[in-house]
Parts: sequence; structure tokens; C-alpha cells
Amino acid sequence: MGEGFGPWKMGTDEAIFPFITSANIACGFHAGDPHIMRKSVASAAAHGVAIGAHPALPDLVGFGRRAMAVTPDEVRDYLCYQIGALREFCRAAGLDLQHVKPHGALYHMADQDEAIAQAIGETVQSTGKQIILITMAGSRYDAYCRARGCRVAAEGFADRAYNRNGSLAPRTQRGALITDPERAAAQAVKIAAEGRVVSFDGAGVNLAVQTICCHGDTPGAPQIVRAVREALEKAGVQVRPLSSWLP
Amino acid sequence: MGEGFGPWKMGTDEAIFPFITSANIACGFHAGDPHIMRKSVASAAAHGVAIGAHPALPDLVGFGRRAMAVTPDEVRDYLCYQIGALREFCRAAGLDLQHVKPHGALYHMADQDEAIAQAIGETVQSTGKQIILITMAGSRYDAYCRARGCRVAAEGFADRAYNRNGSLAPRTQRGALITDPERAAAQAVKIAAEGRVVSFDGAGVNLAVQTICCHGDTPGAPQIVRAVREALEKAGVQVRPLSSWLP
Amino acid sequence: MGEGFGPWKMGTDEAIFPFITSANIACGFHAGDPHIMRKSVASAAAHGVAIGAHPALPDLVGFGRRAMAVTPDEVRDYLCYQIGALREFCRAAGLDLQHVKPHGALYHMADQDEAIAQAIGETVQSTGKQIILITMAGSRYDAYCRARGCRVAAEGFADRAYNRNGSLAPRTQRGALITDPERAAAQAVKIAAEGRVVSFDGAGVNLAVQTICCHGDTPGAPQIVRAVREALEKAGVQVRPLSSWLP
Amino acid sequence: MGEGFGPWKMGTDEAIFPFITSANIACGFHAGDPHIMRKSVASAAAHGVAIGAHPALPDLVGFGRRAMAVTPDEVRDYLCYQIGALREFCRAAGLDLQHVKPHGALYHMADQDEAIAQAIGETVQSTGKQIILITMAGSRYDAYCRARGCRVAAEGFADRAYNRNGSLAPRTQRGALITDPERAAAQAVKIAAEGRVVSFDGAGVNLAVQTICCHGDTPGAPQIVRAVREALEKAGVQVRPLSSWLP
Repeated sequence: MGEGFGPWKMGTDEAIFPFITSANIACGFHAGDPHIMRKSVASAAAHGVAIGAHPALPDLVGFGRRAMAVTPDEVRDYLCYQIGALREFCRAAGLDLQHVKPHGALYHMADQDEAIAQAIGETVQSTGKQIILITMAGSRYDAYCRARGCRVAAEGFADRAYNRNGSLAPRTQRGALITDPERAAAQAVKIAAEGRVVSFDGAGVNLAVQTICCHGDTPGAPQIVRAVREALEKAGVQVRPLSSWLP
Repeated sequence: MGEGFGPWKMGTDEAIFPFITSANIACGFHAGDPHIMRKSVASAAAHGVAIGAHPALPDLVGFGRRAMAVTPDEVRDYLCYQIGALREFCRAAGLDLQHVKPHGALYHMADQDEAIAQAIGETVQSTGKQIILITMAGSRYDAYCRARGCRVAAEGFADRAYNRNGSLAPRTQRGALITDPERAAAQAVKIAAEGRVVSFDGAGVNLAVQTICCHGDTPGAPQIVRAVREALEKAGVQVRPLSSWLP
Repeated sequence: MGEGFGPWKMGTDEAIFPFITSANIACGFHAGDPHIMRKSVASAAAHGVAIGAHPALPDLVGFGRRAMAVTPDEVRDYLCYQIGALREFCRAAGLDLQHVKPHGALYHMADQDEAIAQAIGETVQSTGKQIILITMAGSRYDAYCRARGCRVAAEGFADRAYNRNGSLAPRTQRGALITDPERAAAQAVKIAAEGRVVSFDGAGVNLAVQTICCHGDTPGAPQIVRAVREALEKAGVQVRPLSSWLP
Repeated sequence: MGEGFGPWKMGTDEAIFPFITSANIACGFHAGDPHIMRKSVASAAAHGVAIGAHPALPDLVGFGRRAMAVTPDEVRDYLCYQIGALREFCRAAGLDLQHVKPHGALYHMADQDEAIAQAIGETVQSTGKQIILITMAGSRYDAYCRARGCRVAAEGFADRAYNRNGSLAPRTQRGALITDPERAAAQAVKIAAEGRVVSFDGAGVNLAVQTICCHGDTPGAPQIVRAVREALEKAGVQVRPLSSWLP
């Protein structure tokens, strides 16, 4: 959420907030600016949605989606800066951060480079022991952060196709985005209720998740999010902010 | 302090920290980057120097020294973002912010536009009632922020020449910068001990201040700061961090 | 045109190109990035539309719409940089620039500060004697640039309301934007055919223009541009690129 | 050259210009701003030094020294933008570009990814058949650009240690920078006169070069450049701008 910048809009945040319980809010490096951040925090608060920082690599023109050869120390510093900036808008609204989820290329780099995963884990721990770190279910990044004692929530994706090994099909691949609300909803329910997902090429994959992610910039995002929420509730899944129940 | 950016250095912070009790640290908009901010906080902590945020207009190439037609809401949002970012580096070091001082053009705009002064005062109050706001002694900005109940410390400048009305001679004017350590020290002592300063053109001016500012980018800054500190102590002035004694 | 940035879109350029003969293309300071610039030049070329640089103050988050206290030398350097960048995309496409039009706050600053107008005029002349500079009809900026021998085309606005003195009603004023295609078309025809416009409050104003501007980000811009073009042609006005006929 | 930014300086360009014949000037993405670019072009012109663009990845805080997962199209667009910007400052001074040398990570990416080398070669060719592209002697990037018909000048480094395979020892390696003027001068003469260099670990390496590079940010750069120039002339090497003799 909050992924506009200056005069530019992205997504339809207001149509999505009613159907979610936790929001990742951009912090100015890949998207978001101070005005949008304040507004997004206010919207989240108005809908009772828990707030997470969505820090990124310093790559505005590339929307944080291009890997960069940054050092672990650079990652620590970039995260601390962005988390602090968003946290101050939360404090001004009488709230605190619930979680942190690295954005885009940084999220994927955490899975490929343990030193990056370590930098992320340490930074979030030093931000506060109670702050939840969102990881990708089944990733080395997830395993690493759990091992070092972070409060972790692994996520599954309603709107992205999976490979047979539990990784995501790359965005450049045809069909990688699931834009049909019914299919996204079905995938979300299968993940949440059964801990399983069907891969792009038909295989069953185990996936232990604590949170379901829908991207705000997927075409038809409001319809997808609504369908996912309704399907989860119909299936008897309790949808609640992470901090209210995650150990 | 911390007014480098990326590969670029500015000032000689390490030579200055031993002689000061409060530091204004750049927050990334006019100077400073996440790496430099973390390092500056660590240096301040190592020297027992209290930390303040030095937020600015979003004008890196202009070093925040060019007035911009920003709205009060934009000022609020820019300050909140930058204060939060620095504050998180403080927290990671086990500290909190002592104060906030707007940088450059923003500082001067606060004196010329009450709506800007109000935006600054409100933002700092919402950051925390105990956070001190640095103002310019004798300014309308100072008067405004005191009137609305901010915890204010008015500053006098050791290294800048004053006009007869108590304002600063503009940087573009010859002699506006005082680079002789003895003269700067004498001005600092007169301000601190007598509450007076001699203007550029010889007039005596009353100046009620709670803190003395030396700029880190004034030529010879380390010599100036050392001379100021030593002269203040020799004159019997107790030099202590603001938060330890300011009401 | 070309006023997106990175992942963000603005306007509906493809729906507008068929109806115009000259386009102002953003150059990266207020909007536009290298990829969008190349794409916009290609689109203009495909539609036979003459290309102009639309340089701005360095204020991406403010979209170049906030006045800044820049010096004339800074204006010269910012313009030269942006004009050159766009010109190279033109050259790569086998074209050259037709014109330059300062964007946003810079355009208005040119009318309020003769030194800024002078900096703009000189820069465009040094870019090439044949390069046309777009000015606001009736402005001091226009008068100044004509006096110093620039090749000038004064513009009138189809989609903006005028004050009685020939200046534009500010964007913050209700009704300042004309979003009804019929009204915009009527205003364009009156300006082009009669050299007159009716002000916001009903007065007739003389306006000698050589080009009609429609903003790409006005709501309904494609409908407005189409209506303006069709009305001009119906009224017998020849709509042709400036360089083909301007002395 | 021109690798300052805003208020920040880097290097001692004025001490270096007297001893070189071709300069790489930063174009704003990793360093340099419009004001510095104009000033650098003027200095080069005053010293009769031929001007080259030194375009980089969009990474100001990282000084363009961090690899980024950019596409070949992004490289094309970034180069075109930066080359054009610098070229316009040249034109305003009555000059044209002599050459282009990609900066930092981009330069090294060209050797590791043929699609990047191709993007660079094509962009420089479309900039002008006479524009010289600087490559690294012995690299695949060099071979590729020669094969596709670019006007290429391969460079050797006076101030960097070489590996046995003709690549550069990475900056992070101890001894990778040669800061002793005599050693740098000796290496330059050996490269220029014999077409050979002695590697870090003592092996002789063939190196066919047309230009010798000294970095402006190497400690002692003015002394190095002077020693290199004087040693080359003493050894009977004619030092002249590339465009005056390169086929």
C-alpha cells in the first residue's frame, strides 16, 4: 500500500483496506513519499489494519525490483532508515509497527544470500523483539530468520503462480500473475486450510504459512482481495492481524 | 554533523565531537545517508553528545539552502519522515533524540511564515513533549513555538555575524562567516554570559539564548569549536546537554 | 507528454498524439525517465508531431510545481542538462528539437523575475538559433525574450481559465481548469481566430498567440484535445507544427 | 573529472587537467550535477583537453559502483540520456564529445554480459560513428565492440594492479590501488611502450592499449598524473587526444 509517489498514483488502496488485516506500506525508497506515508497510516488506522514497513533498495525509477550488489551493512542501514521513517508516522497516529516485509528485489536477495537474510533479521530484531518479520514460506531466508530467533510470519501468495519447488514463478513468465479472483481465492484457501498449493505445472507443494499476500498492483487487486477474504471466511479460516495471535 | 553523502565527505566531525554537548545530525534530505547517519549516531554516543535531528527540505543538490514553496502539510510530513529515520538509528544505539533543529532554508522560512513555524512546532510536539526544538533567538519562529508550548531552546551563533535587529547577516555578505576562532569564542562568551552580541556594524543587541551553534562546514570549524568550548569554560559557563537542565 | 516516472503512468499520451502538432516532453527533473523519454520521442515521431523539451526545476516529488529560490545560473545549467538529454533521444531517432517550454513553477518564475527569463532565453538561444521558445502570451517573460531576439511562440491555453489581466487563474482556484471539451474548444477557437479570450469574470482580453496548449494531465485530456483540434479546423484555422511557419 | 555533487567536492580536477589529453566527465547519475558539468567542460576546454562522457548506473549514493540487474534497454536509455546532457554542455562551449566511457559497475558489467556490451556499443554508435568508445584492454567487452565496428580505444590503468589474466585486481583487495607516483608512471610507460604490464603476483601480461587511465579519486592523483605524463614523454611516447590519431 502507499505505492504512489509525488503526483503519481498506484493501486486502489481504499478499495483494498476493508478486506485486509495487515498492510505493507512503502517507505520512500521504491515508492511512497512522506505525504503518502502519513495518509496510508491514517487509512490503515481507520480500517483497523495493522501496519508493516515495506522497505526496499534505493531504486525509485526501478521500483525496487532490480537486484543491486549492496553489502549487508548497507541493507541494515537502508532498513533502519525506512523502518524508522514509517514508525514515526505510526507514532504520530498513536500506533506502532506490527511487522516488516522487505520489498521486491531485496526480498528475493534474502533468499539467495544468507548474509542479506542475516542483515534483515538482525535489523528487525534490533527494531524490537515483538516486531514480526514477514518471510517467504519454505525459503532459506525464512529458515535462517527462525533459527536466529526472529518473530517470523511466513507468507503465501494468492495472486502468484508457484514453481514445483515452492518458489514463485518469475513475473516475466506468462501466467505468473493470477488475476482471476476466483482462482486467487481458491489458492488462498488451499494454502490457509491445507498448507498446500498447486504448482504452475500441476504438482502439489507443501507450504506452511501464517499470512496470505495479495499485491496491490496486480490488475483487479480489489476484486482479488475481496474474493480471497470472503473465501477464507466461508472456509472457516479466521482472518486476524498477525500480532494478535502469532507466538 | 553527518553532512556527507555517499562517497562525499563534509566537515571534520571527529575533530568536533570532543568539544560539543549536542549535535544536529543530517537526515538524508539535504545531506546524510543511512550509513552516515548510523555512524554519526555512534560517534555522538561515544563522545556522550546528545543527538538532534537536522531535517531539511528535499533538495540534495542545493544542500537544503534554497527556499521552496512547500505547504505546511508538506513540512509536517518531511519532518516526521526525517525525524523518524534518525530516531530509529538512535534507538538501535540505545538512545533517543534530544532535539530537532530544522536545517537551512527551512529554518529561515519558519521565521518568515508563521504557518511553517506552526507546522514545525506541531510536528516536534507530536514527536514527543520532551523533544526540544531549537529556534533562532529573538525570531518570530521562537516566539510562536514558545507560545504554543513547545520545549524550546533558542540558539545564538558563534560563527555568524549579526544584523542590528538580531537577525543573521546573509551568507552571501562579506564577513557573514566568522572564521577566526578567537572572535567566534569571544562572541560565544558574550552571548552566553551577557545575553548580548555586537552586530556587524557595531551595535549592541540583546540575545537570550540557551544553546550556542557552530557550523560544521565553516572553514576551521574544529579550531572554532575548541576555542569556543574552552573560552566558555574559562568564563565559568557550564556547558551541558540541553535536556539535562532545560525546563 | 511523457510525464510518467518509473512504474508510474500519467495521462493518456497515445490518445492525444493524433490530435496535436507539437508536444512538450518531460526531461526527468519533474517527470519522465530515460525509458519514457525514448518512448515518447518514438510516439511523437510516429505521429509526425514536432518535439519540444519540457525542462523543470529539480523537484520530482513536487512535480516541478513549487517555486524554488534558484539562481539564474542554476536555471541555465538545469535547462542545458535536460534539453541535451532529450535532444539525444531525438537525434537517435533521426530528429531534432523544435522547441523548449519550461515546465510548472519555472514557467511562472520567468514571468516574475527577469533574470530567470533572461537565463531561459539565453540558454535556448545557445541551444540553437532555430529552436523556438514557448512563452506565455502577454507576459513579461514573453516580452523579454522577444526583445533579446529569441525565436518565440506565445501560447494560449484551451483548458485554463484566464484572469482579467491575461494571466492564468491559479490551479487552486475553483474553475481554473476547463474540463468541458466544448468550452475548451470554444476558447481555443476564440484565441486562435480572434486573438481574444473571455476572462474568468466575463471580461474580454486580447491575447496574441502562436500556439494553443492543452495539458496532458487535465481530466478528459484526450476528449479536450480532440474537440479543440476539430473545432480549430472547422473554424478554418490551419494547425501545423510551429517550425513550419513561425518566422 | 567533475565527480563532485551539489556542495560536495571530489578530487582536484584543476591540478590534473594540465597533464591529461582526454577527460571522462561525470554526467549526473553517479556524480556530477549540471553546474559541475558546465564547469568541467569549461576547464577541459581551457586546457585543450578532449571531453568524454562518463555515464553510469542511476546510483548516486553508491557512486555507480554497485552492479544492478538492469536490462540492456535500460542501459541504452541511461546512456543516451547522460551522453546527451553532457553533449549539450559541450555544444554550448562550441565543442563536441570525443568519447564515451561507462563508469564503475557498468564498465565491469559490460565485460560479464555481452548483452550489456552490445547495448553500450550500439548506443555509442547511434550517438555518432566518430565517437570513440573506451573499453578495457583484453576484455570481452572490447572484443565485442570492435567486432561490431565501433571506434574503440582500449585503456590500460596506471593506478590499478592487474591480475595474471589481464583483469583488474578488485578495489577491495589490498594493493589494488597504486598510489606511488613512480610506480604508476613505470606501469604506464611499460603499458604504452611495450604493450605489457606486470601482474600483482609478478607475471608478465600482454596489454594492447590506446589510452592510459588515471582515476581522479585515487589518493595523490595530481602527483600520479603528473609523474605518468612526464615519464611517458621522457620515454618518447607521444601523448595526444584520441580523436587526433585513432583510426
